[in-house]
Amino acid sequence: MLIGACARVGSRILRAGHCVPQFFAATYRAYHLWCNSVLRSYLNNFPSSTKMADVESILSPLRADVQAQGDLVRRLKSEKANDMEIRRAVAELKARKKLLEEKELELTKQDHKIDRAKLEDLLKQRFVYDQSFSIYGGVQGLYDYGPTGCAIKANLLAAWRQFFVLEEQLLEVDCSMLTPECVLKASGHLERFTDYMVRDVVTGECFRADHLIESALEAIRTSKRTSEAEKSEIDKCLSQLEGYGADELAEIITRYSIKSPVTKNDLTSPQKFNLMFSTSIGPTGQYQGFLRPETAQGIFVNFQRLLQFNQGRLPFGAAQIGSAFRNEISPRSGVIRVREFTMAEIEYFVDPKDKSHPKFAQYADLKLPLFSACDQMDGKSTQEISLKDAVARGIIANETLGYFMARIFLFLYMVGVKPDRCRFRQHMKNEMAHYARDCWDAECLTTYGWIECVGCADRSCYDLTQHQLATGVRLVAEKLLPEPVTVHEVKCVPNKAKIGRTYRGEAAQILKAFETLSPDESLKIKEELVNSGKYILSVNGSHFEVTSDMVAIKEADVRVHVEEVVPSVIEPSFGIGRIMYAILEQNFHTRENDEQRTFLSLPPIIAPYKCSVLPLSSHPDFWLCLAKQLTRVGISHRVDESGGSIGRRYARTDQIAIPYGITVDFDTVNQKPPSASLRERETMKQIRVPVSANLPDLVSDLANGIVSWRDALANYPIFEQQEASK
Amino acid sequence: MLIGACARVGSRILRAGHCVPQFFAATYRAYHLWCNSVLRSYLNNFPSSTKMADVESILSPLRADVQAQGDLVRRLKSEKANDMEIRRAVAELKARKKLLEEKELELTKQDHKIDRAKLEDLLKQRFVYDQSFSIYGGVQGLYDYGPTGCAIKANLLAAWRQFFVLEEQLLEVDCSMLTPECVLKASGHLERFTDYMVRDVVTGECFRADHLIESALEAIRTSKRTSEAEKSEIDKCLSQLEGYGADELAEIITRYSIKSPVTKNDLTSPQKFNLMFSTSIGPTGQYQGFLRPETAQGIFVNFQRLLQFNQGRLPFGAAQIGSAFRNEISPRSGVIRVREFTMAEIEYFVDPKDKSHPKFAQYADLKLPLFSACDQMDGKSTQEISLKDAVARGIIANETLGYFMARIFLFLYMVGVKPDRCRFRQHMKNEMAHYARDCWDAECLTTYGWIECVGCADRSCYDLTQHQLATGVRLVAEKLLPEPVTVHEVKCVPNKAKIGRTYRGEAAQILKAFETLSPDESLKIKEELVNSGKYILSVNGSHFEVTSDMVAIKEADVRVHVEEVVPSVIEPSFGIGRIMYAILEQNFHTRENDEQRTFLSLPPIIAPYKCSVLPLSSHPDFWLCLAKQLTRVGISHRVDESGGSIGRRYARTDQIAIPYGITVDFDTVNQKPPSASLRERETMKQIRVPVSANLPDLVSDLANGIVSWRDALANYPIFEQQEASK
Repeated sequence: MLIGACARVGSRILRAGHCVPQFFAATYRAYHLWCNSVLRSYLNNFPSSTKMADVESILSPLRADVQAQGDLVRRLKSEKANDMEIRRAVAELKARKKLLEEKELELTKQDHKIDRAKLEDLLKQRFVYDQSFSIYGGVQGLYDYGPTGCAIKANLLAAWRQFFVLEEQLLEVDCSMLTPECVLKASGHLERFTDYMVRDVVTGECFRADHLIESALEAIRTSKRTSEAEKSEIDKCLSQLEGYGADELAEIITRYSIKSPVTKNDLTSPQKFNLMFSTSIGPTGQYQGFLRPETAQGIFVNFQRLLQFNQGRLPFGAAQIGSAFRNEISPRSGVIRVREFTMAEIEYFVDPKDKSHPKFAQYADLKLPLFSACDQMDGKSTQEISLKDAVARGIIANETLGYFMARIFLFLYMVGVKPDRCRFRQHMKNEMAHYARDCWDAECLTTYGWIECVGCADRSCYDLTQHQLATGVRLVAEKLLPEPVTVHEVKCVPNKAKIGRTYRGEAAQILKAFETLSPDESLKIKEELVNSGKYILSVNGSHFEVTSDMVAIKEADVRVHVEEVVPSVIEPSFGIGRIMYAILEQNFHTRENDEQRTFLSLPPIIAPYKCSVLPLSSHPDFWLCLAKQLTRVGISHRVDESGGSIGRRYARTDQIAIPYGITVDFDTVNQKPPSASLRERETMKQIRVPVSANLPDLVSDLANGIVSWRDALANYPIFEQQEASK
Repeated sequence: MLIGACARVGSRILRAGHCVPQFFAATYRAYHLWCNSVLRSYLNNFPSSTKMADVESILSPLRADVQAQGDLVRRLKSEKANDMEIRRAVAELKARKKLLEEKELELTKQDHKIDRAKLEDLLKQRFVYDQSFSIYGGVQGLYDYGPTGCAIKANLLAAWRQFFVLEEQLLEVDCSMLTPECVLKASGHLERFTDYMVRDVVTGECFRADHLIESALEAIRTSKRTSEAEKSEIDKCLSQLEGYGADELAEIITRYSIKSPVTKNDLTSPQKFNLMFSTSIGPTGQYQGFLRPETAQGIFVNFQRLLQFNQGRLPFGAAQIGSAFRNEISPRSGVIRVREFTMAEIEYFVDPKDKSHPKFAQYADLKLPLFSACDQMDGKSTQEISLKDAVARGIIANETLGYFMARIFLFLYMVGVKPDRCRFRQHMKNEMAHYARDCWDAECLTTYGWIECVGCADRSCYDLTQHQLATGVRLVAEKLLPEPVTVHEVKCVPNKAKIGRTYRGEAAQILKAFETLSPDESLKIKEELVNSGKYILSVNGSHFEVTSDMVAIKEADVRVHVEEVVPSVIEPSFGIGRIMYAILEQNFHTRENDEQRTFLSLPPIIAPYKCSVLPLSSHPDFWLCLAKQLTRVGISHRVDESGGSIGRRYARTDQIAIPYGITVDFDTVNQKPPSASLRERETMKQIRVPVSANLPDLVSDLANGIVSWRDALANYPIFEQQEASK
C-alpha cells in the first residue's frame, strides 16, 4: 500500500508510516505489531462514529427479533423437541437473520457507494476481463482475463506464494485436473455435487429446483392473501427443502403451481444434475473422468509422498494453486459464480490430538472481525475479538485454525481488501458437513452483498479416511509417543505345512481367516485349544476343525515408541477470482468533481503495471532507453505513445491502476540538465526529477515501498501542470 | 548459471565471468555480446575435436546416401514426374534420413551417457513428479508435480514471463480452457485432431492405426524374405499412409495380416478418434464443448480486444501460459507425451507485407544451430549460421521469425538446456500445414532422441481468417499508409420513399439488393439509367423496373490514409513439461567415484530451493532465526533437521538441485565469534562464514549471480570436512 494513498482515503490505517512490501523485510515481531496497530487504529475509530449510532438504533429491534428466535431454537434443542418443530423455528430464524442482514447492508452501504455499471464499463473497456468467446456469442460463466486482469492475477498469486508457500514452508504441488471417477466417489463429490434441476417446458431454460421453489414460496409467504395456516405449511416446506428428493420437489411444484420465473411456462419434473464436468479419459471411452471441482483432492491422494518428502513428520502443510470447474446450472453475478475458476488451497495436516500451532503466539493479540454462529443466532453483529480470546473461549475451535484465519486476514488486507468490509462468518451447525469441526468464511462486502472469498475449515480426518477406505492404502502418520508404552500383542501363527496337508484346496481360505483374526478371537481360540485340544473355525459357512498342531497363539508385551494417527486437516481455501473482484470493487473510485473519471486504487504489490511512460516529445530515443532501464530493474510498465492529451492518457493509466507515471516532455529533451516528471495516481501530484537522479530506481523504490511518496514530494520540486481530462 | 559450476563442467561457456541473472541487469548491447561470446566459445571448440572427426568418417557414407536420394526427389519434382513416383522417392528419403539420424545419435550419445532409470528413480524418490492417482492404480499420461517439480516449474514460468512478457512487452491473457465446439471447428481442430484407431479384439487395447501399420510394414520391409516387388508395394503404402481413410487402412491391415503387437490378437477395423476431451457445458447438455488442445485459440478469439488495448497498432504480441489437453491413444515416454500439459504460447501479430523486427539487429550476428529442410534433404548435419545470413539467404523466412528463434535459444540456454544438445529443425514442406510459411522446432537431445520442445511458426493469416469466416466479425487491423492514396468510390444511394411507394411489400428486398451491389454493377446501372432512363433489377428470380428517380449512383475520389489488413501471426509455442524434462536429463549427473550419488545441476534461476539449512547442533534458536532471515531476503530454502549424517543430507539436497547449503554445527553455537559453513553443490567445497557477515545476504548474492562462488572462495576461509555419503 503506498503511502501517498493516505491523503486521499483519509484513513488512519496507514498513518504509522508502515507499508506492505516492507513488511516482508520486517521481523515477525514488528510485523505483528504493525498488524495490530493497523487494526487497532481502525477499530478505535470506526464503531464510535455518530453514523454508526444512528444505524444501531434502526437495527436494534431487528437484532432483538433474531435473538428471541435464536433463544427459542436453543430451548427447543435443549428440550429435545420434535424435529419438525425445531426445523420450523430454524427456518424462521433464518428469515429474521436475512431481514437483519439486508437492513444492515442497506444502511452501511451508504459509506461505500459504488456504481457497479461504471465499474463494469471500466473492466470491459480496459480488458481487465470479459466474457469468453464473445465473437461466437459467448458462453455463460466463462471469462477471459485480458492483459490488465492477467497481470493482477499473476501478481496476486505471486504474493500468495510468497505469503503462504514460502513463509509457512508449505509443500506446493501441481496435480492433474482430469480426475478419474473413483477418486471423486471416495471424496463424496459424485454424491454431494448433485442438484435437482427443472426446465421450462417451452424454452428449455434450466433452473435449480430448490432455489426456484425457495424464492417462489417466499413470494407466496409474503403475500397478504396468504393465511397463517398456509404460511405455516410453507415454513414446513422451506425448513425441509434441503432433504427433499425428486418426488417431493415435484409435488411442491404442482401443489403451489410454480412456473418458470422468466416465461411463466410450465416446468418439467425435477431431475438430478451433477455439477461436475464429465469426460472420458483414454480412447476406449470406458474410463469415466471429471474435471476436478476443487484442487484439494490432488493433495490428499499424494499424502504419502508428501509425508515422505517431509521425512515422515507432522504437522506439515501442502498447497496447490490451480483451476477447478463447476458446471453451474445458470451462472450469474459476473465472475462471482463461474464455471471455470482459479483456487489456491492449503491442506495443513496436524495431529488430531494436538492442534496447537508454534507461531500462534505471534498473533495471539490480533483482533479479528468475527461473526460467530452464536452471534448470528443472537442477532448480534461482527465482534472484534483477539485470537487468544477466541480460542480460549472456544469460539474458534483450535490454534491452528485461528493462526490461519489471522494469516488470511493479513493477506487479504495486504492485497487491497478493506478491513472494514471484511469479516469471518462462522458456519452454523446445520451448514457444516457432518465431519467438519469448525468452519469460517472470510467474506468481503461488495455490491453483491457479503461474498465468500476464503473458506477456513477444520475437516477432521474425513478426507484421508475416505481415500483409505476406497483404496486400502494406509494414509497415516507415525507419531512419536512422549514416552514408550508397553502393548500386549496377540499373534496368531498358523502352521502352513500342516494346514496345507490337512485341507489342501481349502487351506488358503483358512490361512486367510487366521490373518484377519482380532486379538480377542485369537485368545478365544487359544482358550479352546488349551481346554479341548481343538477349535471349529467357520469360514464362509464351512466349518474346519483346527488342532493345536495347526496354529500357535503367541502373546507378548512389546515396547512401542510410536503410534499411527490419521491426521486431521485444516483447510484454508481461496477463491482467487472472487478475491480479485472484491479488491477491484473495494478500490474503485471516481475523482472528486469529475464523476466520469473512474480509477482503481490497487496497492502497487498487485497493480498490473507499476509505471506508465507517456512520451509527449517526438524523441523516441529517450523514452525507449527509459523503458529498457525500467525493464532492467524489473519494473513492469506500459508505454502510451498515442496522440491523446496528457490528461486523457493519465486517466487511462489510472483506470488500469498504474500507481506511477513518467512523462517525457519537450523540456526533458531541450532543458539542461534534462528532467522528466513523475506522477502518483492517488494524489495526482507530480514531481520533477533530473534524469541523472536515476528515475527507474526511484520508481522501483516507490513501488516496493522503500521510499514513500511523501518523501519523494519532499525531496524533489513539485511540478504543476493542468490535468485536463477532456 | 552459477559460476562455481565452471570448474566441474570444464566448459568455456562461462569463463567470461558473466552469469545469467546479471544478464537481466545488463544493457541489451552487453547481453548480445554475452550471448555471442558464449556461443562462439562453444562453436570454436566443439566441432574441431578429434572425436567428431571419427564420427564424421562413419557418417559420411550415410550422408551421401541421403543426399543422393534428396537430389532424386528434387529432380523428380522439377521434372513434374508423376505423383506416385515422387511419393515413393520421398518415402525412401525419409527412411535414409532416419538411418542417418539414428547413427548420429548413437555416436554422439557417448558424450552424455545418461542412465535414465537412475534419473527416474531420483524423480520418483524426491517427488519431482510422479504418476497421478497412483493410490487408485494411476492414470496413464497424467502426472502430478511434487514440491520440487512444482517449484522448478513455477521458477521456469516466472523466468519465461520475465524474458518474454516483460522484455517483449507482450499482452498476457488468461483464457478459458473449456471451449465451445464452434471455435474448434473454425480452427480446424474438430477435423484435424481425428486419428484412426484400432483395438485388440480380445483385450480391447487401443493403437493408433497409422503408427501401428507403419511399424508393421517397416518390419516386413526389412525382412530378408521380402522381395523387391513387395518392398516397392510397401513403399507405396507408406508414402500414402497419411492420406488413407478407414477403408484403405482396413484393407492394408487385412492384406498384410497385421495383428496386435502386444498379444498378436486380431484387430478391429479402424475407427475415427478425436484427440480432444469432450464435455457438455451447461445443464441442458446441448452445448458441446472441449478442453482446449492448445492455448492459442484464446488469443485469436480476443484479437479485437487486444488490438484495441494496443490502441489499434501493429505489430504487437500476446501471450498465454496455461494448460492444454490431448486424449492420447496410448501415452508413453513419461512426461514427453501426456494428456494434460502446460504450454506457454506467443502470438505475434505483424503486417503481412512487413515482417521485419525492430530488434532484429541486436541478434543479427548470433549464430544458431540450424537444421534446415534443405540440409535434411542433403544428409547434412546441423549448421551454425548467423541470423543475418539465415534470413538473407532465405533459410529463415523473415526477421520476426528469426528474432524469436534467437530469443527461444537464449531462453533455453538460460534455464539450463545445453547448447550442444539443442537445435532448430525446420519442417519439411510436406510436414507443414498448407497455410504455414515456415516452421522451426527447437529440439533438445535426450535419451528419447531429439524431442520437440518449442515450435516457432509463421502461420500467415490462417487463424484470424478462419475465425472471421466462422463469425462474420472483421478481425483486421488498420495500417497507416506511407502516404495517403486516392481511391475512386462508387456509392449506390436508393430513394427509399419512392421505392417503398412503388413496390410496397417487395421494397425491402430491392433495397437490400442495392446495398450489396459491387462498384462495377453500380456503374452498369448508372450507364443504363443514363442511356435508357431505366434498369431491370433481378432479385431472387423476380424482375423490377428501376427508374432514375429511384436510385442515384454517386462517384467520388476519396483520400484514404489507412488500409485494412488481416495480420500474419508468428507463433512461438513452448511445451513446458518437455523443456523441464530436457533440463532435468541434461543436468543429471553422478559424482565421480560414486555412481550411486546422483545430483541435478540446475541453474539457480530455476532450482526449486536456493538454499538448504542443515542443523547439526541441538540449538534450534539459531537455525530458526536463520530460516526467517532467508525468508526475509526472499531466498526459498528447505530445512533438513532429520537425524541423517551430514553427507547423506548433502546428497539429498544435491538430488533436488539445491545450489547452496548452510550447516549449523556445534562450533556455530560454541565458538566466538560464531560462524556457519556454506557449501556449493557443484564443487562440493565449503567456506566458513562468520554469522556477523550476514550469511543470508551472501546466499542471496550468490543465487542471484551478484557474487561468484569463486569470489566467495577467495574471501572466506575454506572449511574442510569429510562428506561421507554412507
